[in-house]
Amino acid sequence: MPLKNITIAVDAMGGDYGPPVILPAALKVLARYSNLQLILVGDEAVLTKQLQHFQKKNPTDQTRIIIRHASQQVEMDESPAQALRSKKDSSMRVAINLVKEGVAQASVSAGNTGALMATARFVLKTIPGIDRPAIISTYPTINYKKNMRMLDVGANVDSTAEHLFQFAIMASVLASAVDSIVNPKVFLLNIGTEDIKGNEQVRKASQLLLQAKAINYAGFIEGNNIFKGEADIVVCDGFVGNVALKTTEGVAKLIGQLIKKAFYQNIFTRVAGLIAMPVLKILTKWIDPDRYNGACFIGLQGIVIKSHGGANEKAFANAIEEAILQVEKNIPERISAEVEQLLKISSRNKDEDNNSAHLS
Amino acid sequence: MPLKNITIAVDAMGGDYGPPVILPAALKVLARYSNLQLILVGDEAVLTKQLQHFQKKNPTDQTRIIIRHASQQVEMDESPAQALRSKKDSSMRVAINLVKEGVAQASVSAGNTGALMATARFVLKTIPGIDRPAIISTYPTINYKKNMRMLDVGANVDSTAEHLFQFAIMASVLASAVDSIVNPKVFLLNIGTEDIKGNEQVRKASQLLLQAKAINYAGFIEGNNIFKGEADIVVCDGFVGNVALKTTEGVAKLIGQLIKKAFYQNIFTRVAGLIAMPVLKILTKWIDPDRYNGACFIGLQGIVIKSHGGANEKAFANAIEEAILQVEKNIPERISAEVEQLLKISSRNKDEDNNSAHLS
Repeated sequence: MPLKNITIAVDAMGGDYGPPVILPAALKVLARYSNLQLILVGDEAVLTKQLQHFQKKNPTDQTRIIIRHASQQVEMDESPAQALRSKKDSSMRVAINLVKEGVAQASVSAGNTGALMATARFVLKTIPGIDRPAIISTYPTINYKKNMRMLDVGANVDSTAEHLFQFAIMASVLASAVDSIVNPKVFLLNIGTEDIKGNEQVRKASQLLLQAKAINYAGFIEGNNIFKGEADIVVCDGFVGNVALKTTEGVAKLIGQLIKKAFYQNIFTRVAGLIAMPVLKILTKWIDPDRYNGACFIGLQGIVIKSHGGANEKAFANAIEEAILQVEKNIPERISAEVEQLLKISSRNKDEDNNSAHLS
Repeated sequence: MPLKNITIAVDAMGGDYGPPVILPAALKVLARYSNLQLILVGDEAVLTKQLQHFQKKNPTDQTRIIIRHASQQVEMDESPAQALRSKKDSSMRVAINLVKEGVAQASVSAGNTGALMATARFVLKTIPGIDRPAIISTYPTINYKKNMRMLDVGANVDSTAEHLFQFAIMASVLASAVDSIVNPKVFLLNIGTEDIKGNEQVRKASQLLLQAKAINYAGFIEGNNIFKGEADIVVCDGFVGNVALKTTEGVAKLIGQLIKKAFYQNIFTRVAGLIAMPVLKILTKWIDPDRYNGACFIGLQGIVIKSHGGANEKAFANAIEEAILQVEKNIPERISAEVEQLLKISSRNKDEDNNSAHLS
């Protein structure tokens, strides 16, 4: 079976490094996928010149790279409102427009998260039945073969119970389609596991999830248990999830630096360090955030992958590959179908409730 | 200068292990502090017998240990309301009553956190001007010589801006008195550092803190930066703080297990592990949660230290020592004085505002 052709629009100017990281990453992924076409969006003069440079080392079929000029660029510290209002020809906006117009099936950007979310939401709109898009991120677990996905990690604050419920639906679809997990196990992040724990939103979301038979809801989970490999999906408000995500990064970095310090103490510890290093490298590779690059926006009528701003070549390539996977699996369409199905069931249940109320 | 005598009421039945961990820890601390008297609260028969057993190994001045009978015990999974209603003679409740009656200057318990907080709040009441007590916890940072304190880590959900402001005041007093930090640097935990980031509560709390000159407020901080040693105090809502606390525990444990796995792979990695182990032990000791045991309740008219439920002897001893330190430093009185001062200033400011409004 021939693979279907995939076109992805890449914001080539975004992120902390821009074209010098994004172009080699793009060429690397093109070499791996013969059915892939990339539209590199940004300053045409800069991109043409730099592309020539990188293609010397890494020659690629010219027909599979298109440069699309965009005269503006969203700054990393620009406010979403500002970007939306005054950067209508930014590389970020044009890349998302290409998805809206059906020219590309997905877009990838390492740019300003807030601006990217605001732009994507404005241009693509949310899936009917979904109030707010979320950012979903991937984590390692103690089980080498299993990752965990958590959402929302920063798109929304003050999520209601209904929002949390919608996050659970979207993540279930993603985990079963992209990660091939049958009946992904969904937990709600809380500060205890008893029914009375937490805030109103979390308790009410739990009730909604218990009623939704299509979701394999397993109850509350606390922060110390999310990496144990039991959960496929952890659902939470974006403020809470962003703090959890960044605290995780902070602790991992703290421990890494303390390990280094410990091995640098004296000549004996340095020798021990030399011997231990290859083993610790396996570990660092395992928890390497670059492996998990490509938090995606979920809930939009189109695929938008957000790469780390500080992504290196490998990390940005991973983000493009996540986009390819989501295109192959038709994620937005599947979420849309699932939501429609769930809404039908819930309105049928309501009708039945109403009817039985009339009868009784 | 002779040290002042200190009496501490210990809930000797609380925690996952009860007397077999708590009694040896108590004896250890008694041996260290000649001015200390401990009241061990719990089942008299059990405590008398076990105390005899442990004192064989660790003989102590009998006059400095008092056993106070309590006929009930709060279970680890009991609801706070249930404990408050039907366990009026529990070891936890009696220990707190002793503080209320002025017999003891502080109490320490490893029991059920929710029940302990509800009981402490009911019996001791909050300091005037403080709406809600908080739980404050201590963390290591990359700077070996510096710890960081974070609150609230689980007593309150849905904290308002005013609550967050009060948390900042209380923690500032604690850090300057107990940790001897001059002008402790206070940050608000948020999902970004720009003014527009976060939720309404955090943004409003930031405004309140900017106006309070007595507090060294340094702005927003993100989860990845809290361990870098810049912050003395990190303020957040209890839901967010509890997730951050437990996620930190979870990541540290995950990395520890992955390191073990990496060194157990084959004969070569095992040898490397043997050599690296002494160095890694320094690290494990450094991030050992037992060193940081004794999250305390803050904001009550009395000192209540909460030990980990699963605390070992060393950890429980640390919790008693935190209580001693807080008694020596008169923490509740100092917070009370500071709050009174701040309320005076803010009401004076309000009066001035009103006056100038009248004049203009």
